[in-house]
Formats: sequence, structure tokens, C-alpha cells
Amino acid sequence: MTALEIQGEAAKRASRVLAVASTELKNKALKAIATAISDNRDRWLKANATDIENAKKDGMRESLQDRLLLNDARVDGIVKSIDEVIALNDPIGEVIDTVTRPNGLHIEKKRVPIGVIGIIYEARPNVTVDAAVLTLKSGNATILRGGKEAINSNREVVKIMQEALISVGLPAECISLVQDTSRDSATELMNLTDYVDVLIPRGGKGLIKSVVQNAKVPVIQTGDGVCHVYIDKDADLEMGAKILDNAKTSRPSVCNAAECALVHKDVLADFMKVAYPILKEKHVALRCDDASLNALGTHAADSAVTKATPEDWDTEYGDFILAVKTVADVNEAIEFITEHGTMHSEAIVTENAATAAEFLNRVDAAAVYWNASTRFTDGGEFGLGAEIGISTQKMHARGPMGLTELTSYKYVVTGKGQIR
Amino acid sequence: MTALEIQGEAAKRASRVLAVASTELKNKALKAIATAISDNRDRWLKANATDIENAKKDGMRESLQDRLLLNDARVDGIVKSIDEVIALNDPIGEVIDTVTRPNGLHIEKKRVPIGVIGIIYEARPNVTVDAAVLTLKSGNATILRGGKEAINSNREVVKIMQEALISVGLPAECISLVQDTSRDSATELMNLTDYVDVLIPRGGKGLIKSVVQNAKVPVIQTGDGVCHVYIDKDADLEMGAKILDNAKTSRPSVCNAAECALVHKDVLADFMKVAYPILKEKHVALRCDDASLNALGTHAADSAVTKATPEDWDTEYGDFILAVKTVADVNEAIEFITEHGTMHSEAIVTENAATAAEFLNRVDAAAVYWNASTRFTDGGEFGLGAEIGISTQKMHARGPMGLTELTSYKYVVTGKGQIR
Repeated sequence: MTALEIQGEAAKRASRVLAVASTELKNKALKAIATAISDNRDRWLKANATDIENAKKDGMRESLQDRLLLNDARVDGIVKSIDEVIALNDPIGEVIDTVTRPNGLHIEKKRVPIGVIGIIYEARPNVTVDAAVLTLKSGNATILRGGKEAINSNREVVKIMQEALISVGLPAECISLVQDTSRDSATELMNLTDYVDVLIPRGGKGLIKSVVQNAKVPVIQTGDGVCHVYIDKDADLEMGAKILDNAKTSRPSVCNAAECALVHKDVLADFMKVAYPILKEKHVALRCDDASLNALGTHAADSAVTKATPEDWDTEYGDFILAVKTVADVNEAIEFITEHGTMHSEAIVTENAATAAEFLNRVDAAAVYWNASTRFTDGGEFGLGAEIGISTQKMHARGPMGLTELTSYKYVVTGKGQIR
Repeated sequence: MTALEIQGEAAKRASRVLAVASTELKNKALKAIATAISDNRDRWLKANATDIENAKKDGMRESLQDRLLLNDARVDGIVKSIDEVIALNDPIGEVIDTVTRPNGLHIEKKRVPIGVIGIIYEARPNVTVDAAVLTLKSGNATILRGGKEAINSNREVVKIMQEALISVGLPAECISLVQDTSRDSATELMNLTDYVDVLIPRGGKGLIKSVVQNAKVPVIQTGDGVCHVYIDKDADLEMGAKILDNAKTSRPSVCNAAECALVHKDVLADFMKVAYPILKEKHVALRCDDASLNALGTHAADSAVTKATPEDWDTEYGDFILAVKTVADVNEAIEFITEHGTMHSEAIVTENAATAAEFLNRVDAAAVYWNASTRFTDGGEFGLGAEIGISTQKMHARGPMGLTELTSYKYVVTGKGQIR
């Protein structure tokens, strides 16, 4: 057996213990983890300092160094988020459905953990804790495979979490880290079908694509977001401009941010008059089709305004850049989204209920919005508590994934000797 | 584009029409399909005669020829089963959950179809209709890839179904058949990620394994069933013998049939006394461990009784053969099932509620039974109406898959201009 197979088998064994652990024990473990991280933060910060030093040597971009960096305030935030997970309801054991059949068989559909969840992610040490505690609370063991840039931080915090698990009598292997950060270890994890029940990649488009393309273990795709805001001819244009501004600029790097405004031709000129000054003030660069360029009048010559190329319609900028496309009607807007969207979050702004219904019904996305910002697609905003990611696929879970989305179910059937 | 890519794109387009089709229109289509199959049965039977003729030429086994064969009674049965699907509730559009958030956002979690479902199956022409009508009723388009032995039957009945679809104004491509039955076409379908949302293989272990190993499209694993009946020391032995007999002999070829009896050592001799005569009368061959051989006394010399080999513990016989293993307690039974079961259906027979709870809680299977036969794991028996298969995985759907299990959901969010 390879090192990873041995690790996988141990995780599988641990997952069987965790699957039948009480809510009390799981919460006790989470509390122990929170305390251990807080009390041993010097160990974690020291390991992180080594990662940061290496990152500087390797010439890592400042913004990425910032993602990698831990400090007291960040550790406090991570500890606090563990307390929030403790406060969430435990989904395990919930009876989803119950029926007594004519033959007297009593059937309960009962929520159970999935088993072993593999998380493949990049250089953010907070994800290590975040993913581990959510999977633990939902009764799953986790195998974490973080980026090599964060390996020292990850090793140390996993050690700290394992010490906490042991202190409450749970197997250390409920949470484990892939020690080898080579590409080969990621590939091996993606194919560890005997031990890993599902893989959740968290990171950029390249990482997710690679996992989807190469994994034999079932994958939940997350995070890819080319989202649109459609301004209908019956829109309240002031509201439309506010929603578009929020969807684009409140946090451009996240997946629920808008990348493209679709504007009905009848209100194009009026809408640009309202929206352009707001976007300009926020330093948003526009990539416009001919009609919207035209509607901008003299502003079309502004340095931040350029003509869109076909690539713009499929780009997740993750930045203060917005594509603008004119459409003839809601139908063209829906077709454009069908072709260029990533089934993440899509919004219509209109006062016309029939047009809204058409859009909400026909647009195929995890979340569809009427007169609200796409930025609300989030576990916290939807009331799920924490989230482990936002699924853009239709199998198993769609949209924000909270604890419930990390579960499966089983049928528990009780009889008195029934035969068929 | 390849022929299959063109077919996939057409199916995807058709799926968008079907996704927003009313229940009335879908039922009208199903009724038209039922009528068309009944009225044009001569065409189907003629095509089937060609398949049967080819099968005879190729020396196909009689039992497989029987699976391939259509006749008036079987066509009547298939038509009747379509009427049963018409009578089922349409899951699409159902609001699963609804919440109004503190900021006034109204969020509905609404059931939607998955999209395009690929079915890969073997030489049973009834599956062609069965799978097509269940996917249609749940708002999904389907791409069918049947075995080459049934290709003439499948081509004809898909033509008949497509004529019916067109007659009610739905795209013919809601149901389509892969015309090429080479291994390459199956492989291509397994990798058609742009157009196929999920693959459901229906057939033998080899087929399912090949799909799971080779598909990039998400797969729902079905059908593999090495199921156990555990006779506890506190079992009602008469009940245990009846349940074991039913689980083994009522239909040995299906996946929810038992393959192995686990017997508590304290009741081994007594249980064999009750069970052996029943199993012997049904001509069940036994593959026994040493202790159970011993317990059989002089019967151990019967020609149908042999000593088990390690392979027996992992074999789905699909026949009148039963493995018998002695265990020290419920704990050993659970461990044995964990190692050798396929997470399908597992039963305990006991009068002891605590022992039963231990078994039901710890055994990881789609369905766990207390004092009832494993044979009840079935969409009809569970009250789901029809079923497209029995999932043995934990992602998306587990156990019998009815219409609801062929759906996903989306979040429909209504606001009044909310921003984040």
C-alpha cells in the first residue's frame, strides 16, 4: 500500500467512528480544537512565518502572500468561526421522511454522513481549519490536500487539531493532511475510490477543471462564477444601477460577483446615464458592445472604456472590470446566459412580474434573483450557517453547501417478519 | 462535431424545452407514447424478431434470449407501466423549502430537472421505454445507449416514441438512441461532459464497473448487491428462517436478494435445524464455514453443501446459492458486512431492540432491515412509484431512485432592490 492508501484506510476507519458519534462528542471535539488553536497559536504562527519567508524568496505576489499570512486577528477570527459551527444544528440522525407501508413495514429515511471527504485547495491556511470543522460537525472524516506554499502552516495546525481530537477520545485520523504536495499526490487522491467518497476542490478555475477532468472519485464542482445582471425594459433604473454596482464592486474577487451587465435596448441610453457615473467613481473598467459604446456618447472615449471582444463574454474577471452587452428582450438575455453563464447566480431587474417569472423559470443556475444582487449567494446569507463552497453542478447539492449538503441518507426499515 | 456530439447538443436543447413543460404536456406526451407503442406494436415485434434471429445465430444463451424477447403480453405490461408513470406526482416545480431572511429577501428552494440523463444498459428492450418515460416525466431528456443485441428493437421503439413526442409538440430529441453500439460509442458518451449531466448504468457488475472507471460525466452507481441476513442470538429462529428463505429464493437474480447468512454461534445449531430443510427443499446450495458445516451434522455430506472459499464472501451469486458464516456477536457481523457488503441492503433478525439499534445504526448501507427481508429494497415497495435503479452510492441519491431522485433544485430569490 502507498502512504496515501494507508492514510485513506485510516480515514475510512475513523469515519466509521465519527459517523455514530453523538452531537455532544462532536461539539466537544470542536471546542477542544478551538481552544487548542487559540492556545497553541505561537506554533501555528511560527510555521506560517516559515511559509511566508519561503513565499518571499520565491517571489510570490503580494496579494497571494496576504492570503497566506496568519496573524493574531486572523487566528481569532478562525477560532470564532469554530464557535459558530458548534452552535449550528447537527444534521446527522435527522429523520427526513417516514412512512408505514400497507404491509406494516415502517420506513424511516434518516440522514447519515457521507464518509470521507477529500478537499483539494490552494494556499489559504484558514481553509484547512474551516473545511476540517465543517466536515467533522457533519460526521465526516476529511483528507486535506492544501497547496505546497502553505505546507508548514497546514502541518502544524493539523497536528494541533489531531491532538485535540485525541484529547476527547476521537481518532486523530478524523482530520488528516496529505504530506506530499506534489502533483502526483493530488492525482492519487483523485483516484482513491476505495477510501474517499467525494472530493471538493476549492480554488481557482484551473484547479477545479483539473480535478473534474482527472478524478475518478465523485467531485462536487464549486466556485466558477460568470454571473450576469439583466436590466429589463421595465426595470427601475436607479435600482438596477445600485444592484449592478453592488454585484460588481462590493467584492469583485468572489464567485458570486457579476461579470457582465445585459441591458435591454429600449432603456440602454437611460440606464447608462444612471449607471456609468457610479461605476466610473468605483474605477470599474467597461468592455462594451457597439450599442452600449454608442449609448455612452462622449464617455466612450474615456480610458476605462474599451470595445468588448468575444472572450469578454466568457471571462470571470475577478476584478473591477464589467462587460456590457445589449439585448433585444428577455429572451435574448436568457439565451445569452445559457450560452455564457456558469450556472452560478443570475439576476433580473424589472418591475414586470411576468418577465421576471420567465427569467426565473428558464434561467438554469444555482440561484436566480429578481431585484436583488447576485452577491447574496452564500451559505450565511441563505441562512445555512457556514458553507464549504458553492456548487455549480446539479448532482447532489446545488448552490451554497452547508452541513446538510455534506450528508447522505439511509433507509431504516423495521418489520415483524415481513417477507415479499 | 461527432455524431454523438450533435446528438448531445440536440438533447441539451430539448432538455431546456422539457424543463419548463407543464405536467399536463408531459402526461399528454406519455399517453401518446403509450398509445403509439400499443398501436404500432407490430413494428416493434418485427424488429425484435430480427434481434432474436440474430441472437440465435450468435448462439446466445436461452435465458438471455428470454430477456431480449418481446411478445404481446410483455408489450401490454410495458404500456400499462407507462400509465402508472402518468399517475405519479410530477416532482418538478415543488417548493422544497422557503425562507424570508431578516433583510426581506424571499428565498424558495425549488425542484428542477437535472437536464440530460444518459442511460447505458444491456440487452433488455423494456429498459428503453422504462428509462425514457421516467426521465421524461421528471423533465429530463435522455440519451439511451442499449446493447447491440437489442439494437433493432431499440431503434424501432425510439422511433415510435419520437413520433409520439412530435405529435404533442415536444422535440423528438427529448428521447434519443445512440445508433452506434460499438464500445467506442459508450466511451464517448461517458465523456460527453458538455451535454450529459449524469449517467446511470443499468446492468451487470462488469458494465457498472466499466462506467464508474471510465466516465468523466458524473455517474450514479446502481445494482451491485452482496446482501446479508444476520441471525442474532436473540432471533426468533422460525422468523429468521422465513426471512432468509425469502431473501435468498424469492428472486435470486435481483440485486436485493441475500447472498450470505451470518449466524450467531450460540444459535447456530438450532438455526440450521430450522433453516436447512427449507433451503434444501428450494434446492439452495450452501457454501459453509467450518462451524456451520459442523452444525449441519450428517447433512454436511449432502451434495448441495460445500465448504466456503474466501471468494464466496464477496460473490453476488444471483442464483440459488447461499454462503453461511458463523460470527461471535453482532459486532463481528457488522464488521463482516463492512468488509464484504456492497452497501445495498442488510438485515438483522433479533428480538433484542438494543442489538437491532446497534446494527441499524452502524451498518452502512442504502437500506438496513430489522426483522424483514432485504427483498423490499425497491421503489414500488418503498412507495416511490416506479424506480430507475437502486443507487449503492451516497452522493445525490441512495437506495431506490424514483422521479424525485432524478431532479435537482435551484434557489429562486425575490427582492425589492436588496444589496449586500
